[in-house]
Amino acid sequence: GEGVCLDGHRGLRTGVPEVVFGSGKSEAQLERAVQGLADQGASVLVTKLSPGQGEALHALFPEGKVHPQAGLFTLGADLSLTPPWPEQGEALVLSAGASDLPVALEAYATAQYFGLTAGLVSDVGVAGLHRLLPHLQACDQARVLIVVAGMEGALPSVVAGLTDKPVIAVPTSVGYGVSFQGVTALLGMLSSCAPGVAVVNIDNGFGAAAMARKLCHLKP
Amino acid sequence: GEGVCLDGHRGLRTGVPEVVFGSGKSEAQLERAVQGLADQGASVLVTKLSPGQGEALHALFPEGKVHPQAGLFTLGADLSLTPPWPEQGEALVLSAGASDLPVALEAYATAQYFGLTAGLVSDVGVAGLHRLLPHLQACDQARVLIVVAGMEGALPSVVAGLTDKPVIAVPTSVGYGVSFQGVTALLGMLSSCAPGVAVVNIDNGFGAAAMARKLCHLKP
Amino acid sequence: GEGVCLDGHRGLRTGVPEVVFGSGKSEAQLERAVQGLADQGASVLVTKLSPGQGEALHALFPEGKVHPQAGLFTLGADLSLTPPWPEQGEALVLSAGASDLPVALEAYATAQYFGLTAGLVSDVGVAGLHRLLPHLQACDQARVLIVVAGMEGALPSVVAGLTDKPVIAVPTSVGYGVSFQGVTALLGMLSSCAPGVAVVNIDNGFGAAAMARKLCHLKP
Amino acid sequence: GEGVCLDGHRGLRTGVPEVVFGSGKSEAQLERAVQGLADQGASVLVTKLSPGQGEALHALFPEGKVHPQAGLFTLGADLSLTPPWPEQGEALVLSAGASDLPVALEAYATAQYFGLTAGLVSDVGVAGLHRLLPHLQACDQARVLIVVAGMEGALPSVVAGLTDKPVIAVPTSVGYGVSFQGVTALLGMLSSCAPGVAVVNIDNGFGAAAMARKLCHLKP
Amino acid sequence: GEGVCLDGHRGLRTGVPEVVFGSGKSEAQLERAVQGLADQGASVLVTKLSPGQGEALHALFPEGKVHPQAGLFTLGADLSLTPPWPEQGEALVLSAGASDLPVALEAYATAQYFGLTAGLVSDVGVAGLHRLLPHLQACDQARVLIVVAGMEGALPSVVAGLTDKPVIAVPTSVGYGVSFQGVTALLGMLSSCAPGVAVVNIDNGFGAAAMARKLCHLKP
Amino acid sequence: GEGVCLDGHRGLRTGVPEVVFGSGKSEAQLERAVQGLADQGASVLVTKLSPGQGEALHALFPEGKVHPQAGLFTLGADLSLTPPWPEQGEALVLSAGASDLPVALEAYATAQYFGLTAGLVSDVGVAGLHRLLPHLQACDQARVLIVVAGMEGALPSVVAGLTDKPVIAVPTSVGYGVSFQGVTALLGMLSSCAPGVAVVNIDNGFGAAAMARKLCHLKP
Amino acid sequence: GEGVCLDGHRGLRTGVPEVVFGSGKSEAQLERAVQGLADQGASVLVTKLSPGQGEALHALFPEGKVHPQAGLFTLGADLSLTPPWPEQGEALVLSAGASDLPVALEAYATAQYFGLTAGLVSDVGVAGLHRLLPHLQACDQARVLIVVAGMEGALPSVVAGLTDKPVIAVPTSVGYGVSFQGVTALLGMLSSCAPGVAVVNIDNGFGAAAMARKLCHLKP
Amino acid sequence: GEGVCLDGHRGLRTGVPEVVFGSGKSEAQLERAVQGLADQGASVLVTKLSPGQGEALHALFPEGKVHPQAGLFTLGADLSLTPPWPEQGEALVLSAGASDLPVALEAYATAQYFGLTAGLVSDVGVAGLHRLLPHLQACDQARVLIVVAGMEGALPSVVAGLTDKPVIAVPTSVGYGVSFQGVTALLGMLSSCAPGVAVVNIDNGFGAAAMARKLCHLKP
Ligand SMILES: Nc1ncnc2c1ncn2[C@@H]1O[C@H](COP(=O)(O)O)[C@@H](O)[C@H]1O
Ligand SMILES: Nc1ncnc2c1ncn2[C@@H]1O[C@H](COP(=O)(O)O)[C@@H](O)[C@H]1O
Ligand SMILES: Nc1ncnc2c1ncn2[C@@H]1O[C@H](COP(=O)(O)O)[C@@H](O)[C@H]1O
Ligand SMILES: Nc1ncnc2c1ncn2[C@@H]1O[C@H](COP(=O)(O)O)[C@@H](O)[C@H]1O
Ligand SMILES: [Mg+2]
Ligand SMILES: [Mg+2]
Ligand SMILES: [Mg+2]
Ligand SMILES: [Mg+2]
Ligand SMILES: [Mg+2]
Ligand SMILES: [Mg+2]
Ligand SMILES: [Mg+2]
Ligand SMILES: [Mg+2]
Repeated sequence: GEGVCLDGHRGLRTGVPEVVFGSGKSEAQLERAVQGLADQGASVLVTKLSPGQGEALHALFPEGKVHPQAGLFTLGADLSLTPPWPEQGEALVLSAGASDLPVALEAYATAQYFGLTAGLVSDVGVAGLHRLLPHLQACDQARVLIVVAGMEGALPSVVAGLTDKPVIAVPTSVGYGVSFQGVTALLGMLSSCAPGVAVVNIDNGFGAAAMARKLCHLKP
Repeated sequence: GEGVCLDGHRGLRTGVPEVVFGSGKSEAQLERAVQGLADQGASVLVTKLSPGQGEALHALFPEGKVHPQAGLFTLGADLSLTPPWPEQGEALVLSAGASDLPVALEAYATAQYFGLTAGLVSDVGVAGLHRLLPHLQACDQARVLIVVAGMEGALPSVVAGLTDKPVIAVPTSVGYGVSFQGVTALLGMLSSCAPGVAVVNIDNGFGAAAMARKLCHLKP
Repeated sequence: GEGVCLDGHRGLRTGVPEVVFGSGKSEAQLERAVQGLADQGASVLVTKLSPGQGEALHALFPEGKVHPQAGLFTLGADLSLTPPWPEQGEALVLSAGASDLPVALEAYATAQYFGLTAGLVSDVGVAGLHRLLPHLQACDQARVLIVVAGMEGALPSVVAGLTDKPVIAVPTSVGYGVSFQGVTALLGMLSSCAPGVAVVNIDNGFGAAAMARKLCHLKP
Repeated sequence: GEGVCLDGHRGLRTGVPEVVFGSGKSEAQLERAVQGLADQGASVLVTKLSPGQGEALHALFPEGKVHPQAGLFTLGADLSLTPPWPEQGEALVLSAGASDLPVALEAYATAQYFGLTAGLVSDVGVAGLHRLLPHLQACDQARVLIVVAGMEGALPSVVAGLTDKPVIAVPTSVGYGVSFQGVTALLGMLSSCAPGVAVVNIDNGFGAAAMARKLCHLKP
Repeated sequence: GEGVCLDGHRGLRTGVPEVVFGSGKSEAQLERAVQGLADQGASVLVTKLSPGQGEALHALFPEGKVHPQAGLFTLGADLSLTPPWPEQGEALVLSAGASDLPVALEAYATAQYFGLTAGLVSDVGVAGLHRLLPHLQACDQARVLIVVAGMEGALPSVVAGLTDKPVIAVPTSVGYGVSFQGVTALLGMLSSCAPGVAVVNIDNGFGAAAMARKLCHLKP
Repeated sequence: GEGVCLDGHRGLRTGVPEVVFGSGKSEAQLERAVQGLADQGASVLVTKLSPGQGEALHALFPEGKVHPQAGLFTLGADLSLTPPWPEQGEALVLSAGASDLPVALEAYATAQYFGLTAGLVSDVGVAGLHRLLPHLQACDQARVLIVVAGMEGALPSVVAGLTDKPVIAVPTSVGYGVSFQGVTALLGMLSSCAPGVAVVNIDNGFGAAAMARKLCHLKP
Repeated sequence: GEGVCLDGHRGLRTGVPEVVFGSGKSEAQLERAVQGLADQGASVLVTKLSPGQGEALHALFPEGKVHPQAGLFTLGADLSLTPPWPEQGEALVLSAGASDLPVALEAYATAQYFGLTAGLVSDVGVAGLHRLLPHLQACDQARVLIVVAGMEGALPSVVAGLTDKPVIAVPTSVGYGVSFQGVTALLGMLSSCAPGVAVVNIDNGFGAAAMARKLCHLKP
Repeated sequence: GEGVCLDGHRGLRTGVPEVVFGSGKSEAQLERAVQGLADQGASVLVTKLSPGQGEALHALFPEGKVHPQAGLFTLGADLSLTPPWPEQGEALVLSAGASDLPVALEAYATAQYFGLTAGLVSDVGVAGLHRLLPHLQACDQARVLIVVAGMEGALPSVVAGLTDKPVIAVPTSVGYGVSFQGVTALLGMLSSCAPGVAVVNIDNGFGAAAMARKLCHLKP
């Protein structure tokens, strides 16, 4: 119905259960997708929601929860996004600027949704490197680092040069002028001269968390 | 000397020892870098060498070995690049087209250099999906997949939808016209609708292997 | 009048009758074009309408019909766009994601308007290939396939590798970040390593249907 | 061997037999591919060959034939590329400028290789439209038109506005400055305001012929 | 005041009097500029006005006139923009699509403002070339042709191949997808294989008229 | 709190105190940042504010001041932005068009905030060079020139060819069509054939003033 | 023959006789085109020749003349390209840098070929505006100015602000880095804030001269 | 002669004497320019020379000196480019990678040519930040820093966050794939989140030194 065909056994097949991509979906399609997954007994996560879509989902599923800053809706999942956030975890999210927070929260929430313990450290960009140093120990205790940055996107390179953990870099669309909605950060991350960095799409906190989930479930 | 400052304890700090980036270096710089690392007792890997640079290094260090198809030089490391290649391993390299082989070999050799067991399967692109199916079991036995593709770069998406292993995607500069020297493959991989894919720079087999090394050394 | 000069014998000359491109036209221009074609006794199709333009046309021509999700207006043509859609037809439209539906519907409706029997299958993208397999038989029974996809745009390559029907690929502007409003999907489709794919403009469901019409009227 | 995995039953599956993409392949890979297809009893076509690759193939397979202007090698196929060319055929190739000839010849030869009767008309670009008019009758007798153009790429639009045949447009990398190696011609063709045009990659005469083959084998 | 410094003797120096570029100016700046020019005894033309700016100017200068479709405001100049337009003149504006009308009107009005006799012919794009033919005689009687087109922008090439008048080509931002807000039309016009075409910025009807004014004042 | 980590001793370390980048910050983040800096006894400057953000800050800190045209908020700093502006100063801002004023004001205000004496001259673009000449003496008396221009961005080249002062060039997003929101001006400034020009991001009046501050504090 | 179809009556139809575009043509095609035009009794001009093509043409037609710096070949036309050049003429070519000379010479020679009196002034770029001033009188005596510039391409804007002659701007591919082979100069010229500038393709001296020819033949 | 017009009093006017841009100049033009400046009694610097141009100049002026790695020729100037270089100076050049050395040397040599004391530190990129720390004191003693980096271009941001000296950032074309010949480094530098960075063209070591010269001659 409504052009939606759910991929119910994706979790089994790939280790990452289906998550609904909210952007551009009609209200009817969102309802159909959330109801369909709930009917299969799954908890539900919807990403990239506009405020209007979030309100519509809440009206349809009052027991669900909207996280407007992160553009998320959850049903049957118990995620905490309120600060102060734990500053360590299996999957540690580091964010360069305070304006990158929405994307950092998407990664942080999705990692939790996928069953990982997650941490979140914000506003530790390269213009003031001393702010990063107190968190290096938490980096060592993490299994994977998700490093979120806009503008020139230099943080993942610097972090990867200081630690032996794999870095999943998430460029954000924060900035103006030649930041080009995240393209400059993306290109910088891909050109990184520090080995051990792999990159996902601009603003794709979800994708970074999915990769983290696959990494953390690697057998030793 | 010669503007070269080696980063000798990078291996300890980041888990990935310094590898020499050959492209654009003068003969004097290459000699200085290889000798410097050898003097520290390390085995040496040099990447992205032109045929001329390879010959020059061989003349300087006759005990080393040049792998021209992959643009590599090694000294004090025992890597095998001759076909037939093992079709399974901790780090399994899958390559879409026969023309992508140089990049696939760079990843395959670097993974070995970093101490991983590696496999290599070539010419299994999406235009004939049946060629991929016999290798899905080897995918399940690997710890990480390095998927190399040029042109439209669809192979990583398809593979990530069929397995629960993390996929490190490497776009290649193979193709013509709107392949744009690998940019199209890169953008396709980053836009992948299949979760569990992270991407490195175009033709960066080295970077994919460095990421694989960090993943495989994750503590359980 | 109003700067509009209708091309009344285009249908005779090219096999594809004039269809009104609604985007950016003033209300007066739309009225002039619809009335002009109706006066020639033709049925009318207007594409790429904003919601406001659709309402204005409906007020002017209450016997016409607006299809808001597809951005279409029709007068004197009897098209059905309501689901469930037939899953086979001379011209079979396959769509990768649920969010691509508006473009898929434009192609599906226009194909009907041009006198073809049309089918529509939605949400069968490459992240879960098993969803495509049940539809391969319908592909074999079609005369031409219109494959609609956003993000990485890999579906046309995969389909063209599995069937002997010509594939008209339609990239959509669905996605975010490096999807670049459909450019990435477009480039991937043009770089396809599977032969038998030709491509139309981003979101151009109309153009795909026009090409399908010309193909299906080929004399044997 | 050599990283080459042939797709022997592609012809059966898709109606378009495997053609070897020569660009960037090593001599060993080319030999392996040509020999492999010949061993299956197939006639062989190799595309996008450099002069050096062409000579190497001829030395290996002296019974084969090199067509240097078109960058092709054939074995066991009897194609004629010498002017004067027939100016009509099932698949009629129209080329805008004299400099577009290599791509037009690739399409013309590949169409023959796929079993179509083919024609070729050269140097009929839009700067002197009167040169096109004598060929409109041949357009009407063809089943499909392959229109090749560089620079501003306007010829496919003009042709599609004058005939009811489907137009497969092939942009070429001919031109300088903002011709951008064919990108401008490609974008112009995709933006065409004349319906019934679909586009393949820049310089992809092969792909246009493959599409033409699929079209011409459509059952009535 | 308000950061505005008028260039009062520009008309004497360059033959083209100062015209106010409205886009992005504050109400105070617009008032300052219009009043300043009026105080010098000049008639005034303001271009690229939003509807809101147009209303604000009209409230300030009720004796002036707003032309909303063309984004213009005039004071002390007597321009006629209402259809039917004369289909010939010293400066003849030809426009490819009905959606290009706002830009064509900007050129047509500005040419009048500069003292040229002007004509305007709309909707004669290359998809139906027969619509252009009746106007070739008017082309011959004009001194300069301003050819306006969006999408693939082929009309100037075709016109320049049929006449000995200089063609000033104006790309428009009409279109979608790879029309890229006029960039594709611009590139096509610049790559034109027909000599005698020069190009101005996207949507720059004003600039085309300024060039026409300079051409028409050339001494014989 | 709120993901904000202030860099309190940035002024000491780099000579440029922390300035709050307002764009995209939530109201809570803005409050947290302004309060945090005020608590440290610093005067506060916030840049790139939308009108809504400006009003929100004013409601929270009624003793502060909003400068809407420049998108600024200040607290505990006494800046004057009202015309007429002084036409000379240590840091002299020259702006090409009246529409570039918002960016010129951002530079002018920030320079004052950093303790420099500043001047501002507007609307002296290269289309009427005589307007620039009266200001060359003020250029000679300045220590550094900040030259702001949109469209083709030629003013910095011309100024740098006429004076021995360093020129900090600021491209603006003013213009349309191929001005590409300031990219064309940026590229022109970087390609300048006149030595002594260095460039900051598009619309980055703040960054130009920060550079000016560092230059003016150079010890002789 | 050889895919060449000459447009013999182009001169009559458009005022600009056919000129052979040499780039990428085979020796056989060049011979065919030159011979064909000579057989019609026309003088011949070939543009954009590589050194090798020039020599080949000279061997075939020893009575013709090659101008290697300008990439031209002429037969039956008496053009002088040797310095010192006249510094005035109907069509006056101004060139910004000494490195732009090849393009300036192409324009200068082609204008002569088309029967115009031509002048050429070199190395008067905006970094030293005083070099331009002595030539303003020659600008006033010309009928049309062809202004050639690479890098930031500011010269046409400056010239158009100082004279009432139409300016045909020719961007050149001179420069490096963000000059992007002439794209930056092109964009700057199109964005020019000085009216009365129209632009041709990068390095298209031929096209500027063709436009000049059409302008100069305008009836008063 | 030869299209070269020297700007002899540029040094007086702008503080930066004329330097010859070698790229693309013919041998005759190079000779003319060098001789012309020498005749005025000036010392001469030529930049961006190919090896062949360098040799030609040396043959013409045997008393001059070629610096092939830096692409420079000097006459009557006594510059030292041989390592080891001083690691401090008024103008301190820091270079990220060993492969960036040619550009760093261009800046270092040009700064000397302009009369500044200069230093050069190589291979201190962000992948191993500890290599930078020993040089912070020299940064404090410099008057201006020239920071040269390719790939992701993060070094200027990091340096500007650690010092109060103005940073002139020079992106280099070092790297591959998405390094895009220096564009990625350029964009990253312009997007820098650390204030006090201004940027010059890719590989423009000369331009950075010219800016440094103007800064260092600022009166206190
Ligand atoms: N924020 C996101 N970014 C990228 N992909 C997503 C995101 N959220 C969900 N997805 C994936 O997008 C796929 C396609 O979405 P759909 O349009 O719902 O069929 C889903 O199955 C998810 O795997
Ligand atoms: N093929 C490669 N691609 C990307 N980075 C590389 C490659 N090979 C080596 N590297 C890294 O590049 C860094 C910088 O190179 P260098 O110019 O040698 O200082 C080295 O330390 C390696 O970590
Ligand atoms: N000129 C060409 N352009 C695009 N694709 C081609 C061309 N020639 C052959 N191909 C296709 O490219 C595929 C991949 O090539 P290969 O690298 O040989 O595995 C082949 O199977 C052909 O279908
Ligand atoms: N340098 C040039 N730049 C652009 N167009 C040219 C040039 N030289 C000749 N032309 C035109 O290009 C057209 C097409 O060339 P051809 O490939 O010879 O058919 C000719 O008829 C000329 O009008
Ligand atoms: Mg911060
Ligand atoms: Mg293959
Ligand atoms: Mg789906
Ligand atoms: Mg021709
Ligand atoms: Mg129309
Ligand atoms: Mg002004
Ligand atoms: Mg010069
Ligand atoms: Mg290094």
